Amino acid sequence: MEDMDIDLAREDDSEAYMLDRKNVSAILYAVEIEDRQKLTELMEPLHAADIADLLEQINAYDRARLIRLYDREFDGDILSELDESIREEVIAILRPDVLADAVRDLDSDDVVDLLEDLEEPQQEAILDALEDADRAVVEQSLSYPENSAGRLMQREVVMAPEHWNVGQAIDFMRTHDDLPEQFYHMVLVNPRMHPVGNVTLGKIMGAHRATPLQTLVEESFQVIPVNQDEEDVAYAFNQYHLISAPVVDEEGRIVGVITIDDAMVVLDEEHEEDILRLAGVGEGSLSDRVFETTMQRFPWLAVNLVTAVLASLVISMFEETIARFVALAVLMPIVASMGGNAGTQSLTVAVRALATKDLTRSNVWRVIRREALVGLINGLVFAVVMGLVGLAWFGSPLLGGVIAVAMVINLVVAGLAGTIVPVLLEKAGVDPALASGSFVTTVTDVVGFFAFLGLAAVMLL
Amino acid sequence: MEDMDIDLAREDDSEAYMLDRKNVSAILYAVEIEDRQKLTELMEPLHAADIADLLEQINAYDRARLIRLYDREFDGDILSELDESIREEVIAILRPDVLADAVRDLDSDDVVDLLEDLEEPQQEAILDALEDADRAVVEQSLSYPENSAGRLMQREVVMAPEHWNVGQAIDFMRTHDDLPEQFYHMVLVNPRMHPVGNVTLGKIMGAHRATPLQTLVEESFQVIPVNQDEEDVAYAFNQYHLISAPVVDEEGRIVGVITIDDAMVVLDEEHEEDILRLAGVGEGSLSDRVFETTMQRFPWLAVNLVTAVLASLVISMFEETIARFVALAVLMPIVASMGGNAGTQSLTVAVRALATKDLTRSNVWRVIRREALVGLINGLVFAVVMGLVGLAWFGSPLLGGVIAVAMVINLVVAGLAGTIVPVLLEKAGVDPALASGSFVTTVTDVVGFFAFLGLAAVMLL
Repeated sequence: MEDMDIDLAREDDSEAYMLDRKNVSAILYAVEIEDRQKLTELMEPLHAADIADLLEQINAYDRARLIRLYDREFDGDILSELDESIREEVIAILRPDVLADAVRDLDSDDVVDLLEDLEEPQQEAILDALEDADRAVVEQSLSYPENSAGRLMQREVVMAPEHWNVGQAIDFMRTHDDLPEQFYHMVLVNPRMHPVGNVTLGKIMGAHRATPLQTLVEESFQVIPVNQDEEDVAYAFNQYHLISAPVVDEEGRIVGVITIDDAMVVLDEEHEEDILRLAGVGEGSLSDRVFETTMQRFPWLAVNLVTAVLASLVISMFEETIARFVALAVLMPIVASMGGNAGTQSLTVAVRALATKDLTRSNVWRVIRREALVGLINGLVFAVVMGLVGLAWFGSPLLGGVIAVAMVINLVVAGLAGTIVPVLLEKAGVDPALASGSFVTTVTDVVGFFAFLGLAAVMLL
Repeated sequence: MEDMDIDLAREDDSEAYMLDRKNVSAILYAVEIEDRQKLTELMEPLHAADIADLLEQINAYDRARLIRLYDREFDGDILSELDESIREEVIAILRPDVLADAVRDLDSDDVVDLLEDLEEPQQEAILDALEDADRAVVEQSLSYPENSAGRLMQREVVMAPEHWNVGQAIDFMRTHDDLPEQFYHMVLVNPRMHPVGNVTLGKIMGAHRATPLQTLVEESFQVIPVNQDEEDVAYAFNQYHLISAPVVDEEGRIVGVITIDDAMVVLDEEHEEDILRLAGVGEGSLSDRVFETTMQRFPWLAVNLVTAVLASLVISMFEETIARFVALAVLMPIVASMGGNAGTQSLTVAVRALATKDLTRSNVWRVIRREALVGLINGLVFAVVMGLVGLAWFGSPLLGGVIAVAMVINLVVAGLAGTIVPVLLEKAGVDPALASGSFVTTVTDVVGFFAFLGLAAVMLL
């Protein structure tokens, strides 16, 4: 079946960074013949992120065999990069000593990220593998709320008193043995340990030793509260083009630092969540099993069933009318479908604008007015088109008129509902990406069928 | 109207970073009474990105008045942060000398970003404002294809020969006057100017002067071809957790460097594009005018109309059956609607997985099989539910059976179409986010109505 016509490889360079299929085949072959040396050789040049992708793409049977053969070489970063659903499975396969080695390599924030999603026994196994000091740091981080800045930050910060000059900063760094793996700024703090500014290492490199650090601070400086939601942290990095930002406790004292690469991961996850929620897919991923996927999709389909039955109830109010003019049954899905689509367009724009804080009290009325107008104009255009189609198809000007008027009504309603529903949901503290779709399509279905069949009942009978 | 019930402000901290509404009102008041000093005072603490958001949120009339009053203070960064649709308008309002000042402050990559989306005469006005050297750099960047790495990179690179040690690197940076504003790595190059490694400034700070730079290079090192699509650049930064990466020409020589903040902007734009395209909204933004918005939404609504008419044609094949059993007209939208929703779920997961390179030749068949199975299971569950509803509502076991079987068929088809359609579109070089929706709902509508009404015609008559 592997060689049928669906082939993702294309000629242009969109294959960039894609796992080479020949490579995957060679790796699976090495697993098949249990050639550990060949496997290690093939995996050697791959980045941990690519190995994680490879493990996600092959099936569970091959995955288990590959991991057992590769065992002694297993890098902790691969675990960090793995999708949650696969991660538990892989950890269960790894030998305890290999797991311990793998985890000990990781930075504390990566260990936290890894632990968050694991079940109790696996969490314990990993915490036990850590040295006492590391374990304390990880447990401290886990004490912050889930999805908060506290979970995201690294605790190693390179700081300097605000009155230091460049020479003092350089001497401090040169004599300090345990600088973090990755850092880009020196944070200036006042005597109460409140961060007051960021100086990039580049600026320190380029300045004279006598230059006060305070004269080199970055213009864009934001301090992140430790309990802030990670979504807002990602927003701040994106909005203010931050590279790193100090994190402070409730008294304003510095407790850690967040860097842009962590914020980028959160931004990516938030987007993923928005897209999937808008489509009613929950937290789904490609590597989930059939049962999990079915369960994730079920709730929204169930909600949709209720919506659809509501629409059917509206139709059933007009059974007699339909029985006399079957053409109505033929044409009625068109009005509802157009309304559903226009509503989805409006609500998607509104949900995005709420997420990026572009839709606010200052402009909400203007946006609602605009959406209604857009619905009106498109409604009028499609009313003319469908009026003519209805006339040509069924030879009834009255039928054409009914569908035209219903189209205008439903597209205006779609524009209004598509904006007002997400705004009200956001206000009520419900994620508009999650729930808007069902509400808006219920409105456009009910209004669409009611307007079309109701007008028909009045006009045609 | 301003004080009606829709109020985006909430008690919790989700307001973080949101433009303060009181602030907006105060600014608009200062504009109203033409108090330039007060306006400048209120705008002073705002970040350029927030000022841009403010300009996007107020209406065109207030915007023009605000800009004219604020005029002499206008910061180039505000232009960079503005949404395209508003940017042209703002540039047209600014006095030529203010515009020239604003643009001269910007880095060359920001000027490029700004110029890309402007019309010819505005482009010329900005190029004329630049000094000759800057203009040459900008024009060189514009010679790379749109949306390529060449447009994204900055041309100022801090480089060192690969054989240098830490002391030489430090001395070079200390004596170099024109280091870039922002840089985090030193790029090691060989004698042919090919980049061979990245060393972070932190590592250089922490090491002894005699340490060879080559012993300090980062593990994650990627070289970006100058013609690579910016989407792939963003993918590489996200996948390999890069902070900066050298850009090379076709001979592999270094021509610039891309930093993570630029990649983060691209990632954000790509996500925005995916979400909007999935909803059939094109390139829409909140600040577009009614006419532009109407035009952006029209094409997909037109496609949807064709889809809906196709579905109606299928229904019209069964007019006689419906005339005899009006209950069919009442129930038939349910099967189509459930199929449409299940199809949207599958296609969204597939489109995302294609974008993140998680759906490949290695697992496409497994994913298709899984989607069909998920459709089958959910189909069976909802078949039982709807079978019972049909039975209870219309008292006909046969009608219940028909809707149950049609439901199973349509949800399996939805799972298959939801995966196969995006994969084939991707293969054909069409963005699956843009076109999948119409294709998949056409399939689920046509199959839904045909299966339900066709079975009914056979079983009930």
